[in-house]
Amino acid sequence: MDKVNLRQKFALFSQYFQPKIVGELNGQHVKLVKVLGSFVWHHHDSEDELFLVVQGRMRIEFRESVVWIEEGEFLIVPRGVEHRPVADEEAHILLFEPANTLNTGNVEGEMTARVLERI
Amino acid sequence: MDKVNLRQKFALFSQYFQPKIVGELNGQHVKLVKVLGSFVWHHHDSEDELFLVVQGRMRIEFRESVVWIEEGEFLIVPRGVEHRPVADEEAHILLFEPANTLNTGNVEGEMTARVLERI
Repeated sequence: MDKVNLRQKFALFSQYFQPKIVGELNGQHVKLVKVLGSFVWHHHDSEDELFLVVQGRMRIEFRESVVWIEEGEFLIVPRGVEHRPVADEEAHILLFEPANTLNTGNVEGEMTARVLERI
Repeated sequence: MDKVNLRQKFALFSQYFQPKIVGELNGQHVKLVKVLGSFVWHHHDSEDELFLVVQGRMRIEFRESVVWIEEGEFLIVPRGVEHRPVADEEAHILLFEPANTLNTGNVEGEMTARVLERI
């Protein structure tokens, strides 16, 4: 039973928008992801998704609005809601979501991460 | 769709070992709890439990070992594993666990919180 130090884990990788698995419980994954720039517009058919900002800030764009998430804040994006994560500067994000969640949801493409590394 | 600021939420309550619900997704709850002193020994029959230290430090005692969790670190306690959360000074903890998780697990008593406040 090993604890996880978020800062140490974030130091292990540098790619953007490539989530790494750092924990698993009750069929859910805890993932870490570094974000910079704009991700793709997508939604998840049956998964709600939590974004917790560990360092920096980011925004989640929706078709009719935008929510900025600052360090120490989280946002839950419900299943079915189309969204686009965007960061103007590098930000470090913790994700909670079901273990089978695909990062690009319904939109498979070059940003899709099919196999996630465990770190 | 409202974001949650952890610091602002922790400022809303002062009781120890009384988790508050701040988010729900995929049948899981995100809870905040302030801890000080020793909780009861217990286990959860069918729920894994994640402790993320947002401020301060705490330890999880097991029958044969102890794990200290510092700010920015998390520990997942698997179902069935007897444990006791302890904090020598006030610490602020984020919990992630199934929505039906009882704080004292298999040991109901005066520290059991049967109805959790949503804040």
